[in-house]
Amino acid sequence: MVCVAVVAFVNLPVIFPALLIMTTHVESNPASQIQIAQALAQQFAESAVERDEQGGTPKAERDAIRASGLLSLSIPKQYGGTGASWTQTLDVVRTFARVDSSIAHVFGFHHLLLATVRLFGRPDQWEPWFEQTAQKNWFWGNTLNPLDTRTVVQRVDNAYEFSGRKSFCSGALDSDMLVASGLDAVSRKLLIAAIPTSRSGITLNHDWNSFGQRQTDSGSALFENVRVEESELLLEPGPLSTPFACLRPLLAQLIFTQMFLGIGEGVFAEMKHYTRHESRPWFKSPAEQASKDPHTLRRYGEFWVELESVRLLAGRAVQLFDEAWARGAELDETTRGHVAVAIATAKVAATRVGLDLTSRLFEVAGARATHGALRLDRFWRNLRTQTLHDPVDYKLQELGEWAVNDELPTPSFYS
Amino acid sequence: MVCVAVVAFVNLPVIFPALLIMTTHVESNPASQIQIAQALAQQFAESAVERDEQGGTPKAERDAIRASGLLSLSIPKQYGGTGASWTQTLDVVRTFARVDSSIAHVFGFHHLLLATVRLFGRPDQWEPWFEQTAQKNWFWGNTLNPLDTRTVVQRVDNAYEFSGRKSFCSGALDSDMLVASGLDAVSRKLLIAAIPTSRSGITLNHDWNSFGQRQTDSGSALFENVRVEESELLLEPGPLSTPFACLRPLLAQLIFTQMFLGIGEGVFAEMKHYTRHESRPWFKSPAEQASKDPHTLRRYGEFWVELESVRLLAGRAVQLFDEAWARGAELDETTRGHVAVAIATAKVAATRVGLDLTSRLFEVAGARATHGALRLDRFWRNLRTQTLHDPVDYKLQELGEWAVNDELPTPSFYS
Amino acid sequence: MVCVAVVAFVNLPVIFPALLIMTTHVESNPASQIQIAQALAQQFAESAVERDEQGGTPKAERDAIRASGLLSLSIPKQYGGTGASWTQTLDVVRTFARVDSSIAHVFGFHHLLLATVRLFGRPDQWEPWFEQTAQKNWFWGNTLNPLDTRTVVQRVDNAYEFSGRKSFCSGALDSDMLVASGLDAVSRKLLIAAIPTSRSGITLNHDWNSFGQRQTDSGSALFENVRVEESELLLEPGPLSTPFACLRPLLAQLIFTQMFLGIGEGVFAEMKHYTRHESRPWFKSPAEQASKDPHTLRRYGEFWVELESVRLLAGRAVQLFDEAWARGAELDETTRGHVAVAIATAKVAATRVGLDLTSRLFEVAGARATHGALRLDRFWRNLRTQTLHDPVDYKLQELGEWAVNDELPTPSFYS
Amino acid sequence: MVCVAVVAFVNLPVIFPALLIMTTHVESNPASQIQIAQALAQQFAESAVERDEQGGTPKAERDAIRASGLLSLSIPKQYGGTGASWTQTLDVVRTFARVDSSIAHVFGFHHLLLATVRLFGRPDQWEPWFEQTAQKNWFWGNTLNPLDTRTVVQRVDNAYEFSGRKSFCSGALDSDMLVASGLDAVSRKLLIAAIPTSRSGITLNHDWNSFGQRQTDSGSALFENVRVEESELLLEPGPLSTPFACLRPLLAQLIFTQMFLGIGEGVFAEMKHYTRHESRPWFKSPAEQASKDPHTLRRYGEFWVELESVRLLAGRAVQLFDEAWARGAELDETTRGHVAVAIATAKVAATRVGLDLTSRLFEVAGARATHGALRLDRFWRNLRTQTLHDPVDYKLQELGEWAVNDELPTPSFYS
Repeated sequence: MVCVAVVAFVNLPVIFPALLIMTTHVESNPASQIQIAQALAQQFAESAVERDEQGGTPKAERDAIRASGLLSLSIPKQYGGTGASWTQTLDVVRTFARVDSSIAHVFGFHHLLLATVRLFGRPDQWEPWFEQTAQKNWFWGNTLNPLDTRTVVQRVDNAYEFSGRKSFCSGALDSDMLVASGLDAVSRKLLIAAIPTSRSGITLNHDWNSFGQRQTDSGSALFENVRVEESELLLEPGPLSTPFACLRPLLAQLIFTQMFLGIGEGVFAEMKHYTRHESRPWFKSPAEQASKDPHTLRRYGEFWVELESVRLLAGRAVQLFDEAWARGAELDETTRGHVAVAIATAKVAATRVGLDLTSRLFEVAGARATHGALRLDRFWRNLRTQTLHDPVDYKLQELGEWAVNDELPTPSFYS
Repeated sequence: MVCVAVVAFVNLPVIFPALLIMTTHVESNPASQIQIAQALAQQFAESAVERDEQGGTPKAERDAIRASGLLSLSIPKQYGGTGASWTQTLDVVRTFARVDSSIAHVFGFHHLLLATVRLFGRPDQWEPWFEQTAQKNWFWGNTLNPLDTRTVVQRVDNAYEFSGRKSFCSGALDSDMLVASGLDAVSRKLLIAAIPTSRSGITLNHDWNSFGQRQTDSGSALFENVRVEESELLLEPGPLSTPFACLRPLLAQLIFTQMFLGIGEGVFAEMKHYTRHESRPWFKSPAEQASKDPHTLRRYGEFWVELESVRLLAGRAVQLFDEAWARGAELDETTRGHVAVAIATAKVAATRVGLDLTSRLFEVAGARATHGALRLDRFWRNLRTQTLHDPVDYKLQELGEWAVNDELPTPSFYS
Repeated sequence: MVCVAVVAFVNLPVIFPALLIMTTHVESNPASQIQIAQALAQQFAESAVERDEQGGTPKAERDAIRASGLLSLSIPKQYGGTGASWTQTLDVVRTFARVDSSIAHVFGFHHLLLATVRLFGRPDQWEPWFEQTAQKNWFWGNTLNPLDTRTVVQRVDNAYEFSGRKSFCSGALDSDMLVASGLDAVSRKLLIAAIPTSRSGITLNHDWNSFGQRQTDSGSALFENVRVEESELLLEPGPLSTPFACLRPLLAQLIFTQMFLGIGEGVFAEMKHYTRHESRPWFKSPAEQASKDPHTLRRYGEFWVELESVRLLAGRAVQLFDEAWARGAELDETTRGHVAVAIATAKVAATRVGLDLTSRLFEVAGARATHGALRLDRFWRNLRTQTLHDPVDYKLQELGEWAVNDELPTPSFYS
Repeated sequence: MVCVAVVAFVNLPVIFPALLIMTTHVESNPASQIQIAQALAQQFAESAVERDEQGGTPKAERDAIRASGLLSLSIPKQYGGTGASWTQTLDVVRTFARVDSSIAHVFGFHHLLLATVRLFGRPDQWEPWFEQTAQKNWFWGNTLNPLDTRTVVQRVDNAYEFSGRKSFCSGALDSDMLVASGLDAVSRKLLIAAIPTSRSGITLNHDWNSFGQRQTDSGSALFENVRVEESELLLEPGPLSTPFACLRPLLAQLIFTQMFLGIGEGVFAEMKHYTRHESRPWFKSPAEQASKDPHTLRRYGEFWVELESVRLLAGRAVQLFDEAWARGAELDETTRGHVAVAIATAKVAATRVGLDLTSRLFEVAGARATHGALRLDRFWRNLRTQTLHDPVDYKLQELGEWAVNDELPTPSFYS
């Protein structure tokens, strides 16, 4: 099994032995952190099959990420972080997704949640959170789900209380900090806070059980009179309040895009290995090796064209995102809108191509690639699960508004 | 879970309580046997999710089939069978496939193996086998795999010995009779025999482990000096010897076609139930119910067109097969060739449509349909696994020879 | 050119010399009329390329149809017609469509308009019209377009006057009788009448100019105070008034379906001929003939599967239509609804497959098949034009209502 | 008509009045030449419909190109040219292709033929040709077709004679210089020469008649004892002799890619205009404008994703080509191979997306978009014709060799 799972990294020298990875970093720079990520991915690949079967929290892997310093990757250097660009940070998400898209998901969301406090809160809020995250390797988890309106916020004394249930709380278990949402009981306005996961009144359930993304801990949570200080609420500028703040949902969409692409690249690498080394030509094939069969070659040509399209679309989207991010508060609606279009375009393509690759590649790898021990179906299961997060048809409708009516997407938590 | 798994039968009155099904039948006719099969399918549906997880041999279900009399379904009445047509027999395969394609597979192969001894052997061979199967509810299993050349046949005294390994022995475990193949050590000719599964020297391994078709027991076997009498060898007319004998591979292909269609119908029924009763419209949808969303409707329209195409292609193929079968020894090559084209056409369509349905239907059922307890991914896993049996591209190439060059398929174990 | 255009009929013996076809028939039966149609199609094929270039009214061909007796094909024997079933009548539409879909269109619409007076009018109206059509070989043309509301009907004395413009009046030029629609000036109700084309006040413009279906004369008309007697109005039972009357739009949809299928079969036959006799293998092909290239074979296999699907879906739809027609006034809504579903299913498939065949077949026929003199692009141009009559997406939406919500289509002039 | 054809440029200020364009340029730089090209395209758009109908040589447009200085676009400044990069030169090809892909073709091929003498010949050959082309606005035409082996070269005295027929000689008519090929009568080696079109013995036939690319003059030629001096033969380094020389077929493929993309962009712009300003919503649509219909929006979303993919793939391919070109004689096989992969990837995508756009966009523009006067079918006809130049399946097979076997394409005149 190991030989198969590792194939995506077959050319990668093992620079960092496992022990080193567990050691806390001293100084970091993006390039060295990316190498650490590649070595970590190689390590995760070895247990990916087993952990897909188990589900649950990948505690050892989460701790390895903590130890690697990669939780500070997107944090600017002045706050003790690595100062990586989003291009670099999302490259790590994609690297992880090639072998384990659950880990890619929670790792990507960690950085999304850091971006959330940055974009929705005041500097005197997010600066200390950034510093502490960098110092203490805090792992951030998600309890923000804008379509789930069951959690309600009451004002109590000088503070607030969040009460209610929540679904799809990816990465909340084993996290150190949470971003949490609730509806103001009076105004019905969405309130978002950053709080320690250990805060009294929070119950995170071990009830995530999907056929894909099995180690994302995307289960439910219960908030019972969870006290939140005003200083923990992200009120200024607040959620989706400015074009810059509206980069938040775009980052979420971009993380998914990179994950989908990573899954596609991962399954391609596995299947290529299988076609070349395990598959046998059909008895009617003119070829002596499966990888030289004319139909197999044509299909690989098609897979290649698909994959290259997504790589370019995703790469362009990330680059535009980085440029928009760099403009900060000066970012205008139109520029933000063009970034939204580029990301939506890439995400649709990554979804479709990924679904095609994860299913049809079996046709060039042959019947033996369905062996249970390989669990090569997990790429399809992971992608199929995560691509249902928000519907492709509505993403296409949004792109259509741009394509035919020249209307840029209206910001929402999904656009 | 039960409520979901049973949905394909939601309109079916429960005519036969489970106890009745376990009782041995006295007199049978095709219509009543088909009703029994529907009741059995309802019963299998209740445990399908659990058994997909377990894998292994569905012993209780196999015994329920034994008790139901359905193992005699295709056996003519004069040998004590039900005398069902292939249309009727394959209708039961499809009925089972809607809820459990593993059972559909081994049940279909049982009848394929009966057809094998009928088509390749002499009446004094297959008549008693038919009679005994009908009387004793023998379940036939497969150890015939023409592309696996490892089992060799030696002539020993007045008999033969089969020795060697075999792969993909679907339904051999827990069977009563086996059809087995080997290559004559001298002539390299394919020899096929029918022997009791209990024959000394046969080891059937519990090593089937694929991500799909998990209860087909399609594992490996070891033959060690297995003695086979000449009277057990199917030498006259012998494998693929006449146009009529060449119906054997077509029946195999037709069984797969019906299975693939059944899987498609099964997942469609489950997802339709889910869209109507569980799914919620996206927040941008103009519809108040998920099942009234314009994109959801359009997609269901597409799924419907696909499914109807396959239903008609498969129905036509079965009808032509029944007509060809009725011609017996008088069947000519050309007529057999046209049946082959009809079956290949239906199989390609069933494969493609099935892969589409089992993956894309999730997009109209929504994210919650990926819940692990539902195991709705099993339809894709089962279909993906079984459709790799022989490559679609070579089936298409064969159809192309007919379409452009007016050349009918050359009979083989796959055409 | 002739050799290419005739290829679809290459195996057909020329039974009826052209002169015979021009002679008026004495007695007719469906079988002999179908042979006459095949001979006519062969004749039309010879000039199809030239006439596609010219556009305008195919006067000689319309007169040949008049002389052939085929205008009486669907008229029951008791009114002097051939008494063909709809299966037989539409088979002629498809036969014509293989070589000339403009003629197929106006010929199909002629029978549609006869069915219109039968379904919407009283026996004392349609019986004499049927008799006269059979006796005098009247060609009926269309000026009924329910979405075009510009023609208004005023009551004047004891009669009515139709005034206004109309678009898409297929087959009105060179017709003997017209079915015409208008909106009642007071009630805004749709009124439909059957009147002689020569009626005073009707101007039929020679302004049809589309890149496809160039000889359908689907141009505009102007009605100026066109007097219509009450006895010419189809008031009883009236348009879409009963399930039986609601077969009218289904027949229209079915005519299109058969046309689209015929176009697909026609282009397939032409291209097959071209691949076999004109195309050369690419210099990298392992094959010595283009028709033996592995990719060419695979593609022909795909085209075959598509075409067979449509043939079966269309065949089933026609059969159900004939059965529904036979039930006459006793036809109930549900049965009519199932016919509607079958026809919509076939039409969607015929549209998609046709678009694929008319465009992609060039890839197996090679660059020389684009030679201007062959005008092989006309199949795509014809199909592309006619398939825009009503949108596929709304047809799919309708099928989705059935597939997921069990709701049969609501009758309209398009469903 | 004008309003429709011009729509792609609706936002472009008319900087250069037609008169100015006809004036010979004095000094040129890439940016100003690109503006001139845009103005020329606007001018070509106005007559594109009419000229598509006529076919034949677009003499006025060719002369306008001559006068514009654009024939020197790719010629380096030291030889009197504009010194544009390939990115810039091909951008003009794409700009022309949006409105008139025939002109795009011959314009692109002119620069391809300049590149041919540059890559296959000696500096003392191509330097004067470059200088004279820049000075005299020579238009180069093609009579090089490596798969057509009918033209044979004999050695006569100190020179050579080319004799034989040729097909597909795009842009040869009305050209000033020709690149011509022939097979050495003795060695069967391919010889390529650059000669004046007026050279004695050359007959260029006005026999191009295809349903697409109607003004490319891609007809046949006859060479009768055409004398060619040794100094006109491109022997050093000779055809496909070095990695740098092997850029020639890649440039040809890249020109096609840009043309296909331009056609896709052109039809998209036309249809978008039509959907917004002419199309009406279907009577069942919830939208008040056709461009707001949910299905129309979704489809435009899909078209957008497709078009963006091709834009990025083509853009990357051109950029890599420019980088490879800049390396000159130092270009190595591997780098050239990666460029080949990028171009083949882009070309496959441009082909497929183009075929989709040119056909399916009618479904969002509606039935009236088929009006004959618009000739909107010409986009499909042009693309369908040109995409048959070399088969997509073999391009995919080549990409498959890279994708699965890590083998870069072997240089040929098509790879």
